[in-house]
Amino acid sequence: MTEILRGAAVIGQSGGPTVVINQSLVGFIEEAVKADAITQVYGARHGVQGMMSGDLVDLGAESPDNLEQVALTPAAALGSVRMKPTASDVAQMIATFQKFDIRYFFYIGGNDTAETAHIVEQTAAEQGYAMRCFHIPKTIDNDLRITDHCPGFGSAARFVAHAFQGDDRDNRSLRGVKINVVMGRHAGWLTAASTLGRRDETDGPHLVYLPETVFDPENFLADVASVHEKYGRCLVAVSEGIHDARGKSFLQVYAEQSGSALAGDQDSHGNVQLSGTGALGDALANLVKEKLPGTRVRADTFGYLQRSFPADASEVDRAEARMVGRDAVAAAVGGEHASGSIALRRVEGDAYACETFVTPLHTVAKHTKDMPGEFLDGDHAVAAAFRDYALPLTGGITPMADLSMKSVS
Amino acid sequence: MTEILRGAAVIGQSGGPTVVINQSLVGFIEEAVKADAITQVYGARHGVQGMMSGDLVDLGAESPDNLEQVALTPAAALGSVRMKPTASDVAQMIATFQKFDIRYFFYIGGNDTAETAHIVEQTAAEQGYAMRCFHIPKTIDNDLRITDHCPGFGSAARFVAHAFQGDDRDNRSLRGVKINVVMGRHAGWLTAASTLGRRDETDGPHLVYLPETVFDPENFLADVASVHEKYGRCLVAVSEGIHDARGKSFLQVYAEQSGSALAGDQDSHGNVQLSGTGALGDALANLVKEKLPGTRVRADTFGYLQRSFPADASEVDRAEARMVGRDAVAAAVGGEHASGSIALRRVEGDAYACETFVTPLHTVAKHTKDMPGEFLDGDHAVAAAFRDYALPLTGGITPMADLSMKSVS
Repeated sequence: MTEILRGAAVIGQSGGPTVVINQSLVGFIEEAVKADAITQVYGARHGVQGMMSGDLVDLGAESPDNLEQVALTPAAALGSVRMKPTASDVAQMIATFQKFDIRYFFYIGGNDTAETAHIVEQTAAEQGYAMRCFHIPKTIDNDLRITDHCPGFGSAARFVAHAFQGDDRDNRSLRGVKINVVMGRHAGWLTAASTLGRRDETDGPHLVYLPETVFDPENFLADVASVHEKYGRCLVAVSEGIHDARGKSFLQVYAEQSGSALAGDQDSHGNVQLSGTGALGDALANLVKEKLPGTRVRADTFGYLQRSFPADASEVDRAEARMVGRDAVAAAVGGEHASGSIALRRVEGDAYACETFVTPLHTVAKHTKDMPGEFLDGDHAVAAAFRDYALPLTGGITPMADLSMKSVS
Repeated sequence: MTEILRGAAVIGQSGGPTVVINQSLVGFIEEAVKADAITQVYGARHGVQGMMSGDLVDLGAESPDNLEQVALTPAAALGSVRMKPTASDVAQMIATFQKFDIRYFFYIGGNDTAETAHIVEQTAAEQGYAMRCFHIPKTIDNDLRITDHCPGFGSAARFVAHAFQGDDRDNRSLRGVKINVVMGRHAGWLTAASTLGRRDETDGPHLVYLPETVFDPENFLADVASVHEKYGRCLVAVSEGIHDARGKSFLQVYAEQSGSALAGDQDSHGNVQLSGTGALGDALANLVKEKLPGTRVRADTFGYLQRSFPADASEVDRAEARMVGRDAVAAAVGGEHASGSIALRRVEGDAYACETFVTPLHTVAKHTKDMPGEFLDGDHAVAAAFRDYALPLTGGITPMADLSMKSVS
């Protein structure tokens, strides 16, 4: 058991938005305003930035009715940030905490966010400032360790599954080759969700390329030609993170080989921009056009809709995102944990259900989780086990329907 | 009054898919199987192609339960085609009609489809083959003449409005400039729908560029810089059909000036490919990056999801698409019209409602309808009158919500 501190709480949101990130914020507020140990409930604008500058808002002043509407609104209501605080940044944050008597720090985000929480915890301890530090999980990438899955993934997976269902009908209707690029630089979870609306092997996507395997352009072209030959059409799901055997991004290799300038930015590590540009899809479409001259070839890049489309969230995901926010407060004031990350685990039983538990921050921070081998099937397909794992998180996907098409002789 | 013919009916689907095109098909089937004058109900695979080759299916054999599922499934259940039949093609079609005693021809699609129906009607008359020819309207572009609006548009508009609502939250959360490219080569209706979820001028899209006006890259860059200066962010809606004063596509001009190869195809008229590629969005993003160095600039191209996403259709659009299919049969066997296109008009009253009427095929064929001046506001905004017109078609868009954000001093 640890001492139960009395003081204010602050929460921030970090990293890429999701459709349900505000569910976690609202779950946190609901529980924090009721907790005896928590004297004030503050939100920080743009995450650690607001904590450094003292740009805080009073979340205890929000009305329950408006909070319900905010919970249904995508993307960080407090504003987000992508920033790993330096030692002096964290010192500034702790100065703010001292000024406002903040003893509870909560941070909603992915593995980098968990790392920030870990650094804040360590720095506060070094300075002898007693506080509690908790990470609330969020990422459409579903790549956090320990937890069964991540709040935000179920809704993004639902969107991607529906998008592929619709586009598969489009491709049946007008034929040709269609390539769709799905988010996920390091892990293929969201790209694999493209398969969740399939009924059988005639439904697309017929080919799925994930960053967990090596992408070989020659194999890809042979696969596409083979499916197109068989069905007169081919729908392909490609992760934005496909790469060669050395781990180099396919788009980078393509640009170097073709001598073409890349449309997107490169970051300071030389990583090419993969989201917010159609470059990867267009590059793959060009290869297929050369391989299959005369064939109608199109590419779409789903882009930010995957993490922000407000009208197709998973009800399961919404409820779980709310739960991790609430349970973070319960854990922080419960006296059992001085810090930690809230994780989900499945409850045994016939129907799908999850509960939360607390795992140490360092077990979630820094490193991410790829799809395990049991969810992969060769280098261009997803195993059936993935469907059993992921479908409940989406809230269920209604199958498309065909006419029986009885031919007239 | 015209003679009520007795014979079989055939229906086909043509052009780009929509989310509700099968509602019209199912409405047609429901009514056709009940009509005394109609002896058989046939569907043609891939539109006029199936009519030429005699590739027909028996739609009277479909079960009502399955038809309800098909109605909810996007994209042409019979398969679609993009093809203007030649005189000899139409002669082949009429040979099929004679073989199967088909006296009723129905064709679901846009203005080109209406033109095909018109050609079939004229050719049959020239050959002395008595038949009835009806066009059932469908297009996400909303660019058919005479009708108040087009089935398919309300659902696409709903998707685009929701997509911009979510992306506006994303852009608030992480800031920078975001450009989204919306379908519609000739008319801006769907791009204008990007504004339907806005609450006030602080909500994006802050700038909207339509093909009804001339696109000037210098003005565009000045507009973006001005909004970004004001709000620290900027969300832009761009129609894929933006063009210069001579009507030349912006993407074509950009490619020629920059000397860069275009990713997409060009058609036989030299028109560049605008859908199924991210080239336009990437080109605009590059211009903004040059203008505002250091600013985060991203572009997404919504692509085929706009016309095929199955999980966010407008209930109003669904019902109206069903109605135009049913009423096409009623018109064809009613004895009042030998041919025509089914159109929608608003019923006077406080609540939104529409009814159908029949307009001659030539009034809908060939030419399309741009947005009228009353719906435009300068060269980068949409007038309030457009909202009154379009919002009911979407079934309504729930506003996003903000925290009240009471600052802590």
